[in-house]
Amino acid sequence: MRIIESISEMQQQSETWRREGKRIVLVPTMGFFHEGHLSLMRAVRNQGDILVISIFVNPTQFGPSEDFERYPRDLERDLRLAREVGVDVAFVPATSEMYPEGYQTFVEVTEITRSLCGKSRPNFFRGVTTVVLKLFLIVKPHAAIFGEKDFQQLATIRRMVQDLNMDVEILGHPTVREGDGLAMSSRNTYLSPEQRLKALGLSRSLQEAQTLVDRGERHAAMILDRVRETLGEGGDVRIDYVELRNPLTFEEVSEINGPTLLALAVFVGAARLIDNCILRIPSHD
Amino acid sequence: MRIIESISEMQQQSETWRREGKRIVLVPTMGFFHEGHLSLMRAVRNQGDILVISIFVNPTQFGPSEDFERYPRDLERDLRLAREVGVDVAFVPATSEMYPEGYQTFVEVTEITRSLCGKSRPNFFRGVTTVVLKLFLIVKPHAAIFGEKDFQQLATIRRMVQDLNMDVEILGHPTVREGDGLAMSSRNTYLSPEQRLKALGLSRSLQEAQTLVDRGERHAAMILDRVRETLGEGGDVRIDYVELRNPLTFEEVSEINGPTLLALAVFVGAARLIDNCILRIPSHD
Repeated sequence: MRIIESISEMQQQSETWRREGKRIVLVPTMGFFHEGHLSLMRAVRNQGDILVISIFVNPTQFGPSEDFERYPRDLERDLRLAREVGVDVAFVPATSEMYPEGYQTFVEVTEITRSLCGKSRPNFFRGVTTVVLKLFLIVKPHAAIFGEKDFQQLATIRRMVQDLNMDVEILGHPTVREGDGLAMSSRNTYLSPEQRLKALGLSRSLQEAQTLVDRGERHAAMILDRVRETLGEGGDVRIDYVELRNPLTFEEVSEINGPTLLALAVFVGAARLIDNCILRIPSHD
Repeated sequence: MRIIESISEMQQQSETWRREGKRIVLVPTMGFFHEGHLSLMRAVRNQGDILVISIFVNPTQFGPSEDFERYPRDLERDLRLAREVGVDVAFVPATSEMYPEGYQTFVEVTEITRSLCGKSRPNFFRGVTTVVLKLFLIVKPHAAIFGEKDFQQLATIRRMVQDLNMDVEILGHPTVREGDGLAMSSRNTYLSPEQRLKALGLSRSLQEAQTLVDRGERHAAMILDRVRETLGEGGDVRIDYVELRNPLTFEEVSEINGPTLLALAVFVGAARLIDNCILRIPSHD
């Protein structure tokens, strides 16, 4: 596995590969790998000729009071794991080269980023789309894969790629969970053992919501009440949002009458955790 | 000369050329060609293997009360002139394909676009950078050329390309003028014969400003006063801005002590005309 730190070296290498007709697949990450990251890599490792991962904790997607500084990092372990999975190139740019002095260009998807995480974290999606655009322009991938745990992020990146006419195929990958249902996240490391138990409320509440829909419940308000109850706000647990939205337009939904995004963001201690599922009306055949 | 209207056809063709090792050069335009456009094409026609021009009157760079609807258009004449110059491809996308329903992605250069035209035309640069980014992603040029009449636009595009790590070489081309000094612009067609005479104040005032500097004047205020006097506000003539700024940072300048941008925007009748020059301190050798 080759480690590339220089932006121009990565770009020239990718340009050469493209001219040779090689298919480049990219897995953009912020490092501190868990099984979720590794399964993204495994999912695409045979879908191209060159598998590139990027490891970059992107400062522009963190708010001033957020966890950029203490976001967990372990580059050595990440590189070892990536090598074991069969990654060809780890692109690990320096912050000072990605955002040099005088940097002032940002890309924004304006509508579907207004709600949910975009409301709680005002510059988050602008930071995500900007860094993903930069990574696409540097690594020049034919395809890139993102986890569905960050559902709104995935939708936003798809929208950006479509609007800007980028010929990059965007792939989504189902959320990878621990045995007990907790969605994998680098931020799970912030949880104490008791907080980790409380965090199980997120995945459990998603399952319960689908059970309600299976039994015929269609009122958004009823479902949201049950989800909030299961999350059990109080003490270490503080709900940021619990919402039912159209998974394409992100408009609020008051009645379930088709596939509907149930999205959660919950602070458990110092960790802001997100999870989601698509609620589906059971077919009666 | 091939005329391509489809975004995907243009993109696939460019990708094929790149894989064949061909160098693509792009001249982005809004059409209604004058000698300024044609000299951009001539300047780069031997700098690549494929010369692409785009003709697209970009709605997102016009304000709601500006001249998008009445902006002059003559596609047939443009195509004939381009063919005569030796253009290989004219890319002429439809507005509905460039900005389909639901379009919501914009790129912004945030700092150097705040003053001058960015102040008078709030969404102008956002529209310009967005369409230029899209054109670059569709046409995949190795180089692109822009006129220096739109000095702030050229600086903004350079900044975007640098910040987003695009490997596109950006070339500037000196302003092309009529015999009497008027900078060529598609908007000159809005001028009546008397207005056209008054519009000569723009280029004349730039020359006078350099003459003042040649004679030792260094005070911005004195130079700006003379420029305003020469422009002769009143009647059909209304000054939008007259400013002296650092040509890299666009910060205001109060003393001339190095190359300084003198930039003008003046309404003459229905036409908003811009012009600029770089004032230079004479070397004493």
